Amino acid sequence: MFEAAELGRKVSREEFDALAPDLRTELLDLQQQLRGADFPVVIVFAGVDGAGKNETVNLLNEWMDPRWIVTRAYGPPSDEERERPEYWRFWRDLPPKGKIGMFLSSWYHHPFVSHAMGETSPAEMDEDLARIVRFEKTLADEGALILKFWMHLSEKAQKKRLKKLEEDPLTKWQVSETDWKHFKLYDKFVGAAERLIMKTSKGHAQWHIVEGADPRYRYSVVLSTVRDAIVRHLETRAVARKVAAEMKEVPAKKAKPAALGGQPSILSSLDMTSSISGDDYNRVLQECRGRLSTLHRQAKQQGVSTVLVFEGWDAAGKGGTIRRLTNALNARDYQVIPIAAPTEEERAQHYLWRFWRHLARSGRVTIFDRSWYGRVLVERVEGFCSEEAWRRAYGEITDFEDQLVRAGTVLCKFWLHITPEEQLARFNQRGEIEYKKWKLTDEDWRNREKWGDYEAAVNDMVEKTSTSMAPWTLVEANDKPFARVKVLTTVCDALEAALKGKKS
Amino acid sequence: MFEAAELGRKVSREEFDALAPDLRTELLDLQQQLRGADFPVVIVFAGVDGAGKNETVNLLNEWMDPRWIVTRAYGPPSDEERERPEYWRFWRDLPPKGKIGMFLSSWYHHPFVSHAMGETSPAEMDEDLARIVRFEKTLADEGALILKFWMHLSEKAQKKRLKKLEEDPLTKWQVSETDWKHFKLYDKFVGAAERLIMKTSKGHAQWHIVEGADPRYRYSVVLSTVRDAIVRHLETRAVARKVAAEMKEVPAKKAKPAALGGQPSILSSLDMTSSISGDDYNRVLQECRGRLSTLHRQAKQQGVSTVLVFEGWDAAGKGGTIRRLTNALNARDYQVIPIAAPTEEERAQHYLWRFWRHLARSGRVTIFDRSWYGRVLVERVEGFCSEEAWRRAYGEITDFEDQLVRAGTVLCKFWLHITPEEQLARFNQRGEIEYKKWKLTDEDWRNREKWGDYEAAVNDMVEKTSTSMAPWTLVEANDKPFARVKVLTTVCDALEAALKGKKS
Repeated sequence: MFEAAELGRKVSREEFDALAPDLRTELLDLQQQLRGADFPVVIVFAGVDGAGKNETVNLLNEWMDPRWIVTRAYGPPSDEERERPEYWRFWRDLPPKGKIGMFLSSWYHHPFVSHAMGETSPAEMDEDLARIVRFEKTLADEGALILKFWMHLSEKAQKKRLKKLEEDPLTKWQVSETDWKHFKLYDKFVGAAERLIMKTSKGHAQWHIVEGADPRYRYSVVLSTVRDAIVRHLETRAVARKVAAEMKEVPAKKAKPAALGGQPSILSSLDMTSSISGDDYNRVLQECRGRLSTLHRQAKQQGVSTVLVFEGWDAAGKGGTIRRLTNALNARDYQVIPIAAPTEEERAQHYLWRFWRHLARSGRVTIFDRSWYGRVLVERVEGFCSEEAWRRAYGEITDFEDQLVRAGTVLCKFWLHITPEEQLARFNQRGEIEYKKWKLTDEDWRNREKWGDYEAAVNDMVEKTSTSMAPWTLVEANDKPFARVKVLTTVCDALEAALKGKKS
Repeated sequence: MFEAAELGRKVSREEFDALAPDLRTELLDLQQQLRGADFPVVIVFAGVDGAGKNETVNLLNEWMDPRWIVTRAYGPPSDEERERPEYWRFWRDLPPKGKIGMFLSSWYHHPFVSHAMGETSPAEMDEDLARIVRFEKTLADEGALILKFWMHLSEKAQKKRLKKLEEDPLTKWQVSETDWKHFKLYDKFVGAAERLIMKTSKGHAQWHIVEGADPRYRYSVVLSTVRDAIVRHLETRAVARKVAAEMKEVPAKKAKPAALGGQPSILSSLDMTSSISGDDYNRVLQECRGRLSTLHRQAKQQGVSTVLVFEGWDAAGKGGTIRRLTNALNARDYQVIPIAAPTEEERAQHYLWRFWRHLARSGRVTIFDRSWYGRVLVERVEGFCSEEAWRRAYGEITDFEDQLVRAGTVLCKFWLHITPEEQLARFNQRGEIEYKKWKLTDEDWRNREKWGDYEAAVNDMVEKTSTSMAPWTLVEANDKPFARVKVLTTVCDALEAALKGKKS
């Protein structure tokens, strides 16, 4: 794979000096065009030690305007990072639309080095790489331009390079013992690199293998590749926008409500008469609260995080249920995140970014009042995103949740279900009670008219995202007490199972 | 001081039940009004262990809508927090406009406990408290409503309370050894509390001492105080907005350019013919870069952070100077922050919040291309903030910088100065060079017309914020090479001094 990157290719000083001024001007100019663009640029630099990753990143920063560039390298995770899923640190560093993010090794570091050092099996490495592919795919699908450079050196060239760095007192510090240790495993590293490149070079995020021996050659290749890719991506996106605009003109075909035409749907199979009597409710609620309070304290001590997702019809009682739940928790340890329209900073990022940013440190409870499922509910029904985008979202969401659960987070998802008749009764009641009036908006009435569309969306959502790792709990919520008890019990059971699993 | 909080005041269950429903409705209703308000609410709970801080915060969360509340308690700082100035963790948790932030002990914890335990002298405690006063004042000045509750128990009541908690297996965990250790120092804690309340109870952030023995009494006092304070603040702010609107109608009196009328000003005293010849420039620049590169590496190793502020006339050469500087640094260790109009999330916070959020972890270099000085420059000249606000800002800014420097950060501030003639020449040149055209906007021409106003603002700024801890470096920038060398040399000298100071 690396034969072509060991040919000793060079660019002379004269050639480079002839090429440099224009290239530089073009890059600066492209950065200005980028500032108004609807996508970020993510550039990854990885490869052999001493092949010039650092120098190339420095040159790009030197030639371009560093104000619109974010450069990130990663040492051992901070304690705040260790307490979240592994990719949290990468998500929080992603550049917003219009900016360039340069990432040194980053998400490739761990899979690459640990496989080369023999710490992971091929199967484990492949799993790590598959996650990378999904991560980059989800960024690219939202428009990100992803460029990846693998800086290569032949064994001989690497040795020469490390020696040369060591000889110069000014660059001596750049060579560590680890570098030499890695060098002794050159073949292993090359093997790991081949596997890595094979598995993660995709149309939307290709690897460019760069011969790193000659700085001028390396710079010329990287810089012109960056330039060309940005130019092409700007054009591609412009075309995509045009197509999308034209598609909007075409009236969307209404999906036939097949499953709902007589056939039982997931929601229609719920027993909406479920209820609990007043006395039972008070007793059971007290029991649940005591249980939750104890479990929550244990989870806090053991660093087990909880994420709760609440979705449901307007007036289904999300707020009241959440309050019954938080009453049993210590206010310092939970946070309720109401999800409404995204802020300006959130709009400049991938749609999942705003949820990643709210993940709390270990032992905390994060409660989402509406969530990432907005993508496949309101955004789907109201046409706020393209059909392709919400269809894709199911996979993106299960992947996100998979990362949460693997990091040890207890995740519960609730759909609070009421019948249209019950909703109407509650709307009318809201209009009458002074301090509940604010809760009732015109939008609620409009949403109500689209009941059928929403019902279809909910059925799809449950079908496609209720996994054994992160199942949906459908809550019969015509009777509020019943719903509250069911939610609290579910949370308690999930916490108990997680704590038991941890002990054993 | 606490006599009135040891009277054994109680509220009966009947009284409380009579009062509760209305109070609760009012609080919920106020939260809705708050959502559209132009200020945040900051509530601090501190006081004696066992006096019900936690329970009160929980009740507030229970009665109000937790979606618009942020509750924060603080354990030992995380490593990311330890690497920044002490107050960074509090700044990042501040609620935005329209929300309520509840803070348990928080910034009062350290000054209070360490003084009570005899670890700090009265003078040291007073210094800590003075910083709190400045912190709360700067929040209040920007509109924040600050409420502080000191929960008190008599010695007897505290003992009783701790024993009672210990007896119940459900609450036993709440009592730690530390609580009993503190209890044995009851008198010391009361002494420290008195001093704390005396020094930090201000008109804009008053302490309310609450007798904590009876939960119903405690809840009634706190909840009705919160209600009344929010009601009053909403009214006060409405009046303030009206007055501000009326003030805008009154034509502002132009300040006489007194100091500039013939008298030498700080800027006019600069030798604007300063320059450096081409050969010297290249040699010195290379030397500087080498020196900076070495110093930067040492600073990284020793965890010394650097913050550089660049201000100056349009076209004074900030960008070019910054690039000469970053070239000597490792791209992974610096970040250039361009300061333009604040984002939506930034506008919902105190104007200094957006700078606090960018402070980097230890050993990094953060470069602000324009900065918090916008408040006393563009915002002053263009009337984007009130005269009172920018006049107040000098103190707020020096306080902010003081915290940076005390945390060990190397701080350099540069004003790049050019003459109006030089600016005109550069504007004209920009218009001619293709890839520099974007840099020249109509706003640049408009700003130019206000040269005199800006000059007066710069003179005031330097006069009021050039401190021995954080001096301004005025840079004669008609000759770009001279300016670049002066900036690099200044940064090197400052780093060198800081590293030397650390060693000795």
